[in-house]
Amino acid sequence: MSKQYQIRLNALVQHLKERQVDIAIVNSPKNVFYYTGFNSEPFERFMALVIDLRNETNYLFVPALDQEAAEKSSYVKRIVPITDELNPYKVLKETIGEGVKSIGLETKNVSLFQQEQLNHFFSRFSYQNVGEFISGQRMRKTPDECSKVQYAVQVIEKVLTEGIKSVKEGMTELELTAEFEYLMRKFGAEGPSFSTTVLSGEKSSLPHGSPDGKKMKKGDFLLIDMGVIVDGYCSDITRTFVIGEETAEQRRIYEIVREATREGVLAAKAGVMIGKVDTAARNVIKANGYGQYFNNRVGHGLGMEVHEEPSIHEKNELTLEPGFLFTIEPGIYIPGFGGVRIEENVYIGEDGEAKVLTTFSTELIRLG
Amino acid sequence: MSKQYQIRLNALVQHLKERQVDIAIVNSPKNVFYYTGFNSEPFERFMALVIDLRNETNYLFVPALDQEAAEKSSYVKRIVPITDELNPYKVLKETIGEGVKSIGLETKNVSLFQQEQLNHFFSRFSYQNVGEFISGQRMRKTPDECSKVQYAVQVIEKVLTEGIKSVKEGMTELELTAEFEYLMRKFGAEGPSFSTTVLSGEKSSLPHGSPDGKKMKKGDFLLIDMGVIVDGYCSDITRTFVIGEETAEQRRIYEIVREATREGVLAAKAGVMIGKVDTAARNVIKANGYGQYFNNRVGHGLGMEVHEEPSIHEKNELTLEPGFLFTIEPGIYIPGFGGVRIEENVYIGEDGEAKVLTTFSTELIRLG
Repeated sequence: MSKQYQIRLNALVQHLKERQVDIAIVNSPKNVFYYTGFNSEPFERFMALVIDLRNETNYLFVPALDQEAAEKSSYVKRIVPITDELNPYKVLKETIGEGVKSIGLETKNVSLFQQEQLNHFFSRFSYQNVGEFISGQRMRKTPDECSKVQYAVQVIEKVLTEGIKSVKEGMTELELTAEFEYLMRKFGAEGPSFSTTVLSGEKSSLPHGSPDGKKMKKGDFLLIDMGVIVDGYCSDITRTFVIGEETAEQRRIYEIVREATREGVLAAKAGVMIGKVDTAARNVIKANGYGQYFNNRVGHGLGMEVHEEPSIHEKNELTLEPGFLFTIEPGIYIPGFGGVRIEENVYIGEDGEAKVLTTFSTELIRLG
Repeated sequence: MSKQYQIRLNALVQHLKERQVDIAIVNSPKNVFYYTGFNSEPFERFMALVIDLRNETNYLFVPALDQEAAEKSSYVKRIVPITDELNPYKVLKETIGEGVKSIGLETKNVSLFQQEQLNHFFSRFSYQNVGEFISGQRMRKTPDECSKVQYAVQVIEKVLTEGIKSVKEGMTELELTAEFEYLMRKFGAEGPSFSTTVLSGEKSSLPHGSPDGKKMKKGDFLLIDMGVIVDGYCSDITRTFVIGEETAEQRRIYEIVREATREGVLAAKAGVMIGKVDTAARNVIKANGYGQYFNNRVGHGLGMEVHEEPSIHEKNELTLEPGFLFTIEPGIYIPGFGGVRIEENVYIGEDGEAKVLTTFSTELIRLG
């Protein structure tokens, strides 16, 4: 286990040396997890892996209340606990010492407030963004990481399979959500990887809607989008069902989305520009005249976070590489009518081919 | 309903005028909710309330996929949808136009990356932090907001009362967690307000530990820390139980923590420095010789977010005022032995007195 952290950290340190920074501060909780194995959400408290390149020393700064947990699970063993009444940047300065002229930072995860604090304690430093290197590293997932996502997919598919057995007319969205989340825990998940989405009828046209006391009724689309975290890795699957029997229009829309998802998956392989995966799926929807009802990107990276790099949108010119793991989830959302989304999780294997991690049938299933 | 948004927004606009900024960007999702009524988590997408002081126009920028939902629930009606392939800062510039010299920002919620983007599109602007004003406004909660938290407290107490009935020796932490989260949904919660914490035996000494397959056994402390979101507002309660019968030492520790919580609550009233609430509770633990086993602050603000201002720590010199709502949750955590925490939710009413929103008994209850 500890070997993977060593490999990851060595690669980062190598990069930081080339960038000639004095120290680097890695403070995204999931990046801290990636390099140290310590998986924690510090909320507004300060938590960071700090790499001092001047003497090749690594520190893990954690809220004092997490000290015991960090000591147990972190690969980096120099733990610096910070109690709540202290200024963490002061503790950082006292630990690291003088002479810091350049700092490697994650610019997407350091706020102006934090910059002001750093300016106060390390005057006249310059910063370089190391976030892109880190996200590039995280994008290239090992087969072992893929296995973890795959296991999280297996768990959520078991939840879906079991949970939909209880669907019947008159059940509320929240009741079904409760059933799913109960099953997630029962099947060993640490929890949902995001807010479980169960939307029925015309509400299924809200890509980010929330389940409520609305009752399911015959003829409704039932859109279910959910995932779990298991062992620190996420899954994310969407299937759309129909309560009772579908109309011809519902069937037509469903099959267009199904075809769009399939085309997106077929387009995904190493060497292909990411934008082409988006357009492969999107074009199916456009060609069938529903382009105006699909206004978001086709997918997103998936791993330790449920949304991470790469973003699968039509203007993304990055090329797919082995190790990339992401969702493909086109949809058609017609306000006042309803929506359909079908989402697969895909991994680009070492042979460059796409491996579809989701296995749940994409055929239109009638429930209730 | 819309009146409260108008009142809040008017107060902010008044403040912004005094600060003489050209525009203000409010991009914390919960602050957007606070001023507009649109409650959404955009993840890495751009979402912001933008106030143009030059012509007193308010805009709500949202991801395109949230457009329909925003139109339904936002008080600010000028919705600007942003599709995924666009640069949101470019859209902002095109909407707002030229001539922006000074921007009000939440410095704790604007990253260096976002600053670089703003610099690119609005060259030579200066910024002022408006985050403190906003958090000051949010700290002073109306009785109506207090009622919402109180309702969320009622729901979680019902969950706790029902859920502990199923506790028995041999049950795993995850099984009990699943039961609680099922009940949360059943009793109408939107979801947990944070990761539900169920820790047994020596694991109860980890203030941020996670439930796992560990089985409860006779003589264990069982620490339960959980909350729900209902109608956008959070509750957060901790109670510690014992499986079977407690030892004399467990009883002693429990009663010290109980006394600490009580002293913290008694110290809380308008006009008192916040640090005094922390020390009132902390001193009970110190006086009994357990000071080294309590390393974190006594509490935190609670409202739309489960952790918000004010932080109840001993160095906080802010004075309590009517409208402040926060937790008081001292604890004793002994590595390898176990921990006890008892947490109340408190509101400073218009009369300056503390109203305890939590009602669940703080006596040591034996389960199983």
